[in-house]
Amino acid sequence: MKQSKLFLPTLREVPAEAEIVSHQLMVRAGLMRQLVSGVYTYLPLGYRVLRKVQQIVREEMDRAGAQEISMPAIQPAELWQETGRWDAYGPELMRLKDRHNRDFVLGPTHEEVVTGLVRDNLNTYKKLPINLYQIQTKYRDEVRPRFGVIRSREFIMKDAYSFDTTREGLDKSYQDMYDAYTRIFTRAGLTFRAVEADAGAIGGKGTHEFMALSEIGEDTIAYCTSCDYAANLEKAEVVYKSAEKRTASQAEMEKVATPDVKTIEQLMNHFDMEARQFIKALVFKADERFVVALVRGDHELNDVKLKNIVDANVLTMATEEELNKLGIPLGFVGPFNLPEDIEVYADFAIQDMNGAVAGANEKDYHYKNVVPGRDFTVKTYTDLRNIIEGDECPRCGGHIAFARGIEVGHVFKLGTRYSEKMGAKFLDENGKEQPMIMGCYGIGISRTVAACVEQNNDENGIIWPWSLAPYQIHVVPVNVKNEEQKQLADSIYEQLQKEGYEVLLDDRPERAGVKFKDADLIGLPIRVTVGGKAGEGLVECKVRKTGESKDVHVDELLTYVKELAASLQ
Amino acid sequence: MKQSKLFLPTLREVPAEAEIVSHQLMVRAGLMRQLVSGVYTYLPLGYRVLRKVQQIVREEMDRAGAQEISMPAIQPAELWQETGRWDAYGPELMRLKDRHNRDFVLGPTHEEVVTGLVRDNLNTYKKLPINLYQIQTKYRDEVRPRFGVIRSREFIMKDAYSFDTTREGLDKSYQDMYDAYTRIFTRAGLTFRAVEADAGAIGGKGTHEFMALSEIGEDTIAYCTSCDYAANLEKAEVVYKSAEKRTASQAEMEKVATPDVKTIEQLMNHFDMEARQFIKALVFKADERFVVALVRGDHELNDVKLKNIVDANVLTMATEEELNKLGIPLGFVGPFNLPEDIEVYADFAIQDMNGAVAGANEKDYHYKNVVPGRDFTVKTYTDLRNIIEGDECPRCGGHIAFARGIEVGHVFKLGTRYSEKMGAKFLDENGKEQPMIMGCYGIGISRTVAACVEQNNDENGIIWPWSLAPYQIHVVPVNVKNEEQKQLADSIYEQLQKEGYEVLLDDRPERAGVKFKDADLIGLPIRVTVGGKAGEGLVECKVRKTGESKDVHVDELLTYVKELAASLQ
Repeated sequence: MKQSKLFLPTLREVPAEAEIVSHQLMVRAGLMRQLVSGVYTYLPLGYRVLRKVQQIVREEMDRAGAQEISMPAIQPAELWQETGRWDAYGPELMRLKDRHNRDFVLGPTHEEVVTGLVRDNLNTYKKLPINLYQIQTKYRDEVRPRFGVIRSREFIMKDAYSFDTTREGLDKSYQDMYDAYTRIFTRAGLTFRAVEADAGAIGGKGTHEFMALSEIGEDTIAYCTSCDYAANLEKAEVVYKSAEKRTASQAEMEKVATPDVKTIEQLMNHFDMEARQFIKALVFKADERFVVALVRGDHELNDVKLKNIVDANVLTMATEEELNKLGIPLGFVGPFNLPEDIEVYADFAIQDMNGAVAGANEKDYHYKNVVPGRDFTVKTYTDLRNIIEGDECPRCGGHIAFARGIEVGHVFKLGTRYSEKMGAKFLDENGKEQPMIMGCYGIGISRTVAACVEQNNDENGIIWPWSLAPYQIHVVPVNVKNEEQKQLADSIYEQLQKEGYEVLLDDRPERAGVKFKDADLIGLPIRVTVGGKAGEGLVECKVRKTGESKDVHVDELLTYVKELAASLQ
Repeated sequence: MKQSKLFLPTLREVPAEAEIVSHQLMVRAGLMRQLVSGVYTYLPLGYRVLRKVQQIVREEMDRAGAQEISMPAIQPAELWQETGRWDAYGPELMRLKDRHNRDFVLGPTHEEVVTGLVRDNLNTYKKLPINLYQIQTKYRDEVRPRFGVIRSREFIMKDAYSFDTTREGLDKSYQDMYDAYTRIFTRAGLTFRAVEADAGAIGGKGTHEFMALSEIGEDTIAYCTSCDYAANLEKAEVVYKSAEKRTASQAEMEKVATPDVKTIEQLMNHFDMEARQFIKALVFKADERFVVALVRGDHELNDVKLKNIVDANVLTMATEEELNKLGIPLGFVGPFNLPEDIEVYADFAIQDMNGAVAGANEKDYHYKNVVPGRDFTVKTYTDLRNIIEGDECPRCGGHIAFARGIEVGHVFKLGTRYSEKMGAKFLDENGKEQPMIMGCYGIGISRTVAACVEQNNDENGIIWPWSLAPYQIHVVPVNVKNEEQKQLADSIYEQLQKEGYEVLLDDRPERAGVKFKDADLIGLPIRVTVGGKAGEGLVECKVRKTGESKDVHVDELLTYVKELAASLQ
């Protein structure tokens, strides 16, 4: 492609709305433009990258035996009512009405459509297992779209859905997808980890998120510095070991006036004690009932763990109004004198506490010398807190450290959640009806591009990995008015294309500085500069990633480029 | 691909909702399924065909120098208000609101988005011309979705937009697209014609529709049986030649009572005269004024021609209420005693009439012995009627015949319609601001697939042309339980794939009859049947299109298939 013809509006300035590097660079390097908050147009260069990701995904999905289909973006509300998600999904679900005033959604995901499709067209174990996927535009009305295409309202996803006859079959389908995802993100040049995530109420042994490691990631990953254990913060199990044999405190529990002393910090000052000596009590509404959760003052409650242990569909912090109704004073919550039907769940660490301080459930009062078990009753001690750096690895006993990640993929065992609600059944070998056992598997295509840019850049611009580069080689004649340079550059451009490389020729009559700046910004893997030594048949070959540069004679250029290309793939 | 694994639900019965053959076959052959009226899912086989069309389109668009981008489906209402189409588009435009109650549309087309994009990112003649295209999902809330994907609410289009600095530049961009479209539809195996269409108020020398010829087509094409002239009915010019020298009728105009005699048919009976002896007068509202149009009783008024001659944005038949206000009695309209500000436009053929019958503009009365010019005044004689079969070709003098067509493509000179409204300007060589001169070019991707099926089928199923076939060769072992057949079929399957063919292997343990029925229904170009002669190394090679069949030894199969393939491409 000749750059003079290419619609490639590069920018020197950083766009005001772009907070993170990948967003800035994707706009500056002319990959995309915003149409409206969270909605983007891909320009020619950006669309080439998108298509490369799509092609990798397609190849690996096909290799894993999945079959490509294409489902509609507009979906009738009835389908979503069948599964209850019409109500449950909330304002993130984009809705519209057609001319007959019929309700539709713009699909954020396709479980309903695909389950209905398979239900209506397949009914015997003989045709199973099957895995259907599509690469398609999805819609999600984010509260706060940001980070460019990392959190946008219209985005491209690959979503796949597997249907099996047995749990073991699902395990295999799941593993096939896990392996395919590993190949996909490896080929896309990402530094990533597959982390265990919470499967929520669905249960199922496994759900993994594929996280591109990045400081701007919105998710915290807990990983082991010794083994390959990695989990989402919400999922990472805390290993409980009773640290010391507890001896009951001699002292009786004692009520202390603590007017306006509410936070752990205020309590630490007031009592002159460490955070680990306080009991933090939190009231939650779990569906229709209320529960109290206890964690140590230096720990953070993990509400996903709580939600799972209390088996709630919806878990929310009790509001001040709700607390008032229960007669519980905000800031002084404790496990004492609670209404009878409120159960108390405590983190494992609570049972080792001795002489703790806890809210008295009475305005402006705390108890000190509290001994759990002696002074109040707990329904269950369990793992309720977030893991912290330095904690023990639940797999190997090593140490946990934190990293941040951008979720680029997710594999999920759905089980029979959708097939039962929608009646997607098959006849087994004995002619008996069984619900299909499903898995679902997503990859954020546009997000993968952004994650790649976030991981591969420097102060001058993007550094494309070979596999996603919009073009692989940038041929830059320094001065196109110099006939020698122009002709040499043209012939190199033709020659490299003939060899099968994707080549961009900067044939613009611009100053060398402008061209080099644009070349670095766009970040193609190899740059061949044709300049002053063109007369001697010498050109400069530069690797964007390493900055490594070498003068090469045009006769040896092809061989040298082949070597470079091999080292970069 | 092994058929036992393929999600390919074929049907023996004709789906009730499918009126036309292509719709029936696309459902029966497992290419697609309806989700809701006018909204379809493409199954694996159908999606493969879609992608083949997309690939042909992409290659030819790239070859023509166009650049691929991808614009969003959701577009802010403000953009559509800028061009006035938010109001003008009517209920076909799908609209929605986001969580902040902001208005959006689901794009039926992208003139607004692309004009805004180019306006904001390109401002000099040096970067022009440019042609941007995308292959993308579009939305149109059809009153009556039907004919499967021929008239659907969510569909895939290729849309392209060219930006030029001069009218001559636009002419070239237009011709490039015209040529690319000709190559595309030829490669897709369609029988088609590029027909002249009406450009409406925009003017511009050219707009062509690419019509796949088909009896189920909703558009009438007038074409010449001698030369390559073809035009849409609305556009086809009628050649006017004064047939006979008119001699004024001796008789005076005479008022005749014609109670309840209104239609041409009733008039013919009443007066015992031919249709061609009556003057049909019609009242239209042209924007804010009213006009009367006259055509001969045996002719049909062409309202597009009328709209152009009166230069109206909106032209509608006057309602009965409007006629009443004007004092014109429905059924007795004539060019007499009209309100002063109503102009009369007449078709050329009117001026040759002599002793005609026309409405008296008075309830239950007509005039006879009417002589146009003598008895009433006409503002303009012009071409106002639809061409009819047997009319003279406006290009070569040959004869016009009619055909029906499915519009699969459209090329259109937009001129400055959008660039002026949206301020998309460039600086010319003299530093002067000029509006960009635009063209737009669409191809219905999903519709092209349907048109192809409509043109290529027989009573047993689809007959795919080589270029669009989901697979090219169908290998069918008659009995997979026969080890000899199975092994031979497997090895042929492997061998053909190795040679680069796309092969479907029917490895299902089904009866031969079922397999052959499915094979004919799916309609791959070549079928290799491995049956009773497998032991002798003989297989049957059958061409779906011709039915031609031959026993071939497996050693010669590759050579024979190569020959067949060459003859089918």
